[in-house]
Amino acid sequence: MKKYRKQDFDTADVRRLLEPGPVVLVSSAWNGKTDIMTMGWHMMIGFTPALFGCYIDESNHSHELVRRSKECVINLPTADLLEQVIGIGNCSGADSDKFALFGLTPEPAIEVRAPLIAECYASFECRLADAEPNPNGSLFVWQIVRAHVARTPKLPKTLHYRGDGQFMISGREIDSRRQFPNQAK
Amino acid sequence: MKKYRKQDFDTADVRRLLEPGPVVLVSSAWNGKTDIMTMGWHMMIGFTPALFGCYIDESNHSHELVRRSKECVINLPTADLLEQVIGIGNCSGADSDKFALFGLTPEPAIEVRAPLIAECYASFECRLADAEPNPNGSLFVWQIVRAHVARTPKLPKTLHYRGDGQFMISGREIDSRRQFPNQAK
Repeated sequence: MKKYRKQDFDTADVRRLLEPGPVVLVSSAWNGKTDIMTMGWHMMIGFTPALFGCYIDESNHSHELVRRSKECVINLPTADLLEQVIGIGNCSGADSDKFALFGLTPEPAIEVRAPLIAECYASFECRLADAEPNPNGSLFVWQIVRAHVARTPKLPKTLHYRGDGQFMISGREIDSRRQFPNQAK
Repeated sequence: MKKYRKQDFDTADVRRLLEPGPVVLVSSAWNGKTDIMTMGWHMMIGFTPALFGCYIDESNHSHELVRRSKECVINLPTADLLEQVIGIGNCSGADSDKFALFGLTPEPAIEVRAPLIAECYASFECRLADAEPNPNGSLFVWQIVRAHVARTPKLPKTLHYRGDGQFMISGREIDSRRQFPNQAK
């Protein structure tokens, strides 16, 4: 599998990759163990600071790791990782080391203990935001404290889940800046 | 503009349209006035009941309408509504009637007072969920209480915002059910 050489990226711009709604891989570390989960339930919440919300049900092994460590890395897989995305979403880290099982390479992050996934196009280091909503324990608001993004391709082909084993793959890009009455945000 | 004839749809299946992360149009009604806003910051949170989270900043005119009415309709525009999606996102309902301004047709909903948008492929009637997190007043969790979806096309071409005036349009569909080790969820 291809590893992406990623570069430092402005956290204020992570919406360019996350707001379109791709499936992501959440990596976490706690007490000497790591885990990865496949996640489609997430959204942007702010730019500066870069805030990112997601829902991680308690039934996921990763829930405990992110809850206890208050950290995670949001990794963006490209469409060629379809098999890994499905496999990771269909087994539990309680029974297995998902990095080993799926041939993925953990790389050290800078700000958090959770590892980056070398085979992903982008990785976003997250800390639980100060203003923790978490009303029912499963809704998390993260601050993205550091972003690593590959330079090529300029925009990746991403997977977008529809449920029931069906995915949409990101399609054509449209630049509509000239249609915006004011500076586009 | 084309109006979609929508049919009743199982709320447990709305993720098929919302989880891939499309831009949606939020319609609302309060005190005899309506509004529409363009929104990309949202996520699924549950299936049964169908829960849907979103972030609506206080700076949006719609914020007050949805907060006071505790209701809204999430409408799914297809890619041919690009001009309306951009226009609605770049003006304020405080100054204008966006239905009239953008030539969109309000249709009565069944469970809520907020109107459906006839020109959208799908419309989801929402009530503020009992378990209201809303820690800072801008993060909403809705229960989708009724869903209206067009039968054709089977899946719509949707708009996915990248910021800075750039959109991704939904691309190829992949059916991976056979690659799932268990029944796909």
